[in-house]
Amino acid sequence: MIAADELGLVEDALRKALTSDVALLAKASGHIVCSGGKRLRPKIVLLAYRAAGGDNPSQAMPVAAAVELLHTASLVHDDINDHSELRRGQATINARWGDGLALLVGDFVFVRLLGLLATCSSRAIQILGDCCTAVVEGETLQMLHCGDWAMDEALYLEIVRKKTASLFAACGELGAIAAAGTEEQIAALAEYGENLGVAFQIQDDTLDLIGQEEALGKPVFLDLDHGSVGLAAQYALEHEAGAVEILRAGHRAQVARLLQESGALAYAAQRAGAFVERARSALAVLPDSQARDELRRLADYVVVRDR
Amino acid sequence: MIAADELGLVEDALRKALTSDVALLAKASGHIVCSGGKRLRPKIVLLAYRAAGGDNPSQAMPVAAAVELLHTASLVHDDINDHSELRRGQATINARWGDGLALLVGDFVFVRLLGLLATCSSRAIQILGDCCTAVVEGETLQMLHCGDWAMDEALYLEIVRKKTASLFAACGELGAIAAAGTEEQIAALAEYGENLGVAFQIQDDTLDLIGQEEALGKPVFLDLDHGSVGLAAQYALEHEAGAVEILRAGHRAQVARLLQESGALAYAAQRAGAFVERARSALAVLPDSQARDELRRLADYVVVRDR
Repeated sequence: MIAADELGLVEDALRKALTSDVALLAKASGHIVCSGGKRLRPKIVLLAYRAAGGDNPSQAMPVAAAVELLHTASLVHDDINDHSELRRGQATINARWGDGLALLVGDFVFVRLLGLLATCSSRAIQILGDCCTAVVEGETLQMLHCGDWAMDEALYLEIVRKKTASLFAACGELGAIAAAGTEEQIAALAEYGENLGVAFQIQDDTLDLIGQEEALGKPVFLDLDHGSVGLAAQYALEHEAGAVEILRAGHRAQVARLLQESGALAYAAQRAGAFVERARSALAVLPDSQARDELRRLADYVVVRDR
Repeated sequence: MIAADELGLVEDALRKALTSDVALLAKASGHIVCSGGKRLRPKIVLLAYRAAGGDNPSQAMPVAAAVELLHTASLVHDDINDHSELRRGQATINARWGDGLALLVGDFVFVRLLGLLATCSSRAIQILGDCCTAVVEGETLQMLHCGDWAMDEALYLEIVRKKTASLFAACGELGAIAAAGTEEQIAALAEYGENLGVAFQIQDDTLDLIGQEEALGKPVFLDLDHGSVGLAAQYALEHEAGAVEILRAGHRAQVARLLQESGALAYAAQRAGAFVERARSALAVLPDSQARDELRRLADYVVVRDR
């Protein structure tokens, strides 16, 4: 397990990064960053750092905080574009302060990342830059295909790799680089993160269809309303006559039955499981360690989680 | 004068930075970046580089391109928040592609900056990071005081220093750092940029009131509509009974007469001139050079320009 004090250092770095003499920016960015996110991404950075042989976690701290800031900034801007009102059980920034301020709060969270980069290696900066680009490209592709109920798995996976998996891949890669791991270890942890990220998003999209709003802390059916059609919905649309009407109507019990009986849930779970398996396999080249075991458990967790 | 091929290198760097396999992002970001901006900020970087003794402009190229990307990204997001439809004589990104995509295009332009930072010194990254923060803070303050017709000069200048002058200051500072100038030169060129930036914004706000739409390439009265009350308007509001009604009504000829006859234009010009003078004075510690002469001319230009 990552020591609680390591995650505590991440929290400190995040809080420090989000100070501002414009009180509203500090307040609103603190509101979202400190609202109980899972901190999955910093955890992966820290575990990858350990798994690649690092023993001074402060070396990984700037990137661990940076990936969480990037993730948070993208959530803030997503919520504007999705007109979302609830996130982590609380009002979104746009719901509470309006779209205009939310746009600036997202920008603020993002630009605070630059200060953290000043202590990073040129290679780490390049990786983060490429990852940021991929995230924005993925979000853009998703928006361009909004409402495309005929989206196929290849396009879905392309979007997921960009908007979600690229950041998880960067977490593994950056942790290993901070630990001065071997190139083989760095590549393995990038591969781990990439596959974990795809599995994570497949599960996220399934939870959007069948999850419990209370556990998720955000409304279900959100993605479907905005036309992002995940693997389970794709499968049902392809294999079950009448699926489109049921999904469009959006009665939770009917949707759950459709996905269950058509085998769509089983299919999505199987695909997510395959990516988890790839993520676990990638870890094989790493030496045996507690951190590697934790990364394995984390891979299992992302597909069984309910939030 | 900066050799045309140096500015050509900036254009190349910008074009290269804005490639994307998501065609729309490349197209929309190219639309705004290549729509004939004045390139004032990269010019200042390159001139500061020369004035501080640099003789290999490729050293200044990443920051020269980075400051233009930052400026452009902030324009794209500003246009969303201001509901602007015209910029540099063309449809804004939000007018042409909608707010949601414009948000992502602004994010894209901004994140492409990170790749340029990978080759920069830690000090340069920190300066750019602080500058980005100031820009977002300034925009936020402006939004929070939107419609505040009682804004005083101190608050106005605080906003202007953050949202505009911080970037001009960074241009001077970063150019001098890229040239490995002395600390005195670096401070002088930061001071130059800071004061030039304030003068620039005072003039910008005056042009918003009395400029010609055709020359500006954007609608006039835009800022006033959104509650940003520049120095000329502030002066008129303070010294002329009935000014508020005339400004609110917004008939161009009446506003021009009010600002002329109340002495408001003269006051704003005098204040802008004082900042230009400070900018010019800051250059005194630099050795005599063609670049320094150019920086002086640039300072004069920002307050006589009509666009």
